[in-house]
Amino acid sequence: RGEGVDVARIAVVAGDGIGPEVVAQARKVIDAVVPKVQATEYDLGAVRYHRTGEVLPDSVLAELAGHDAILLGAVGDPSVPPGVLERGLLLKLRFAFDQYVNLRPARLWAGTSGPLSGVKPGEVDLVVVREGTEGLYAGAGGSLHRGTAAEVATEESLNTRHGVERVIRDAFNRAERREQRKVTLVHKTNVLTHAGSLWARAFADVAAEHPDVTTEYQHVDAAAMFLVTQPQRYDVLVTDNLFGDILTDIAAAVTGGIGLAASGSINPERAYPSMFEPVHGSAPDIAGRGLADPVAAVLSAALLLDQLGHAEPASRITAAVAAELAGRVPGVPIRTEEVGDRLAGHAAG
Amino acid sequence: RGEGVDVARIAVVAGDGIGPEVVAQARKVIDAVVPKVQATEYDLGAVRYHRTGEVLPDSVLAELAGHDAILLGAVGDPSVPPGVLERGLLLKLRFAFDQYVNLRPARLWAGTSGPLSGVKPGEVDLVVVREGTEGLYAGAGGSLHRGTAAEVATEESLNTRHGVERVIRDAFNRAERREQRKVTLVHKTNVLTHAGSLWARAFADVAAEHPDVTTEYQHVDAAAMFLVTQPQRYDVLVTDNLFGDILTDIAAAVTGGIGLAASGSINPERAYPSMFEPVHGSAPDIAGRGLADPVAAVLSAALLLDQLGHAEPASRITAAVAAELAGRVPGVPIRTEEVGDRLAGHAAG
Ligand SMILES: CC(C)[C@H](C(=O)O)[C@@H](O)C(=O)O
Ligand SMILES: CC(C)[C@H](C(=O)O)[C@@H](O)C(=O)O
Repeated sequence: RGEGVDVARIAVVAGDGIGPEVVAQARKVIDAVVPKVQATEYDLGAVRYHRTGEVLPDSVLAELAGHDAILLGAVGDPSVPPGVLERGLLLKLRFAFDQYVNLRPARLWAGTSGPLSGVKPGEVDLVVVREGTEGLYAGAGGSLHRGTAAEVATEESLNTRHGVERVIRDAFNRAERREQRKVTLVHKTNVLTHAGSLWARAFADVAAEHPDVTTEYQHVDAAAMFLVTQPQRYDVLVTDNLFGDILTDIAAAVTGGIGLAASGSINPERAYPSMFEPVHGSAPDIAGRGLADPVAAVLSAALLLDQLGHAEPASRITAAVAAELAGRVPGVPIRTEEVGDRLAGHAAG
Repeated sequence: RGEGVDVARIAVVAGDGIGPEVVAQARKVIDAVVPKVQATEYDLGAVRYHRTGEVLPDSVLAELAGHDAILLGAVGDPSVPPGVLERGLLLKLRFAFDQYVNLRPARLWAGTSGPLSGVKPGEVDLVVVREGTEGLYAGAGGSLHRGTAAEVATEESLNTRHGVERVIRDAFNRAERREQRKVTLVHKTNVLTHAGSLWARAFADVAAEHPDVTTEYQHVDAAAMFLVTQPQRYDVLVTDNLFGDILTDIAAAVTGGIGLAASGSINPERAYPSMFEPVHGSAPDIAGRGLADPVAAVLSAALLLDQLGHAEPASRITAAVAAELAGRVPGVPIRTEEVGDRLAGHAAG
């Protein structure tokens, strides 16, 4: 499938706040590098929720399933009760479309600065491969005697050899395509002994098939610390759903914040559409003013094209972003449209 | 009980590696500020494990129970299988002695430097109150079809109103004694809805009893990020056992690493002895050479005295540490004994 699908059909969920602005730039860049992409807009998010009470109607879910990939801007607004859009839209899609690889690259780009004094731009280039369909996100929990002094509440982490092995396999496959070829397994095997043992054994088995890939294991607390003190040491990290949620935000923080971070929720077999989105939120405070940085959305579009087999156009987008960031003058505000134009021009070649 | 127990009986577990060296300095400092402390040494850790195969015999557990507090140096050695001492000693004591408050202060001391370029010494002074006896540490998990493609492994987080409320109460009590009087609840209520709801409701109820304390809530991924980008914003954080494990290591990392970090596993009611220990490990590579920094052990001794009601001597130790660190010349190696002598002298007044 390395050749790419012929005419990619993409569902676009621009969403709320700055979502539409940044997605417009991402589409501009996609159009500049892969002409044959057919995009259909879907109206989901806070606006639709307020208008109709719907988050993700079954009919829309069925339509989305007919696409090769989904590009999402941002959903959410302070007016929507917490959890509604997260669970009803984002998590629902991850599970419905078996998006078991939650991919979060973190780079400290030349021209940008992070919060760590000992780390120079260009020195951090890692990717977290977070499991996306199991663990504590399975929704297996409950409570008894709610609201009384006797209340007990449980949350169960469910882990299968099937689910663990496939995401570890994906991490090793990605490492094979990278220079350093190193995979770090992160878990908490000294406390979570059952799930930890499953992860460790699956990791050892897959590692045996990749003798050219270096491996290491770290407890999640140690990894959280080393991401702050020595982020340069990492290449590919693979971990469970909740650990990945936390570690990816640390990785984003040490590489300059979530403003530039892209992500993909991926079904590598393409049995279902994968979804790509900037990690930043809808930022209602700056929405509609042309001030939002579209780089994270554009990088998400690059992940999308890569996933659809367009590796070369994807790497041209990444190169355009690298040039854009290297050329920025600190303190000079950016204009959303102008950045999009520059990236599209550069990526087009 | 604010007056302190008359003659405190302390069990000392010096442990492995640098444990004995740093504990010796901590005892020296304790003796300098509170003359009436009676210390009994217990030989536990890697050495005993190798000699007798025992980690924590029931008879020793019973003897430890007769003390007012435990001071631990460090246990562990690469020669001991991972998990054995952690689960058999550290976690066993937390559960057996109902040490439900796992306390981890994090300060960026004047005279030291952290990894964050935007944070100046003196600006960070927070404490994480981590739940110590529930959650995913309950040991409630299992697996089926182990070693086959059909394997499933579970880990269950158990949370009770009893257990959650008491640790939140402790966090608010500590906030009342601090200048900023702010408590941040950290959880993942948008995904862990059952446990999250229990934590959020207990937090709201206890907060209502403390109208003078400011409160906020953050998801664990956001808190992990803000600890890196804005650690100055925190005062007291309260969170569950596993989130606390991760967040305390991030807090240690941004305040210069685990080298200076102290911790307490506390039963606030003193129904059982609380345990105090530096967060650093046994550091076998530098053991026995008089090079280990005893500051973390000495700060742990200060937490111990504070817990036993000796608040004033405890704060004199903390002041001595502040002076010691402020006076250090970067690049000049420290000598364990000399630091201990200086701290004891300064704290004694
Ligand atoms: C919104 C929330 C449910 C989600 C998660 O926890 O996975 C988010 O934090 C993320 O990382 O994509
Ligand atoms: C050693 C381990 C079991 C322990 C924990 O996970 O609590 C440690 O990481 C800690 O933070 O004290």
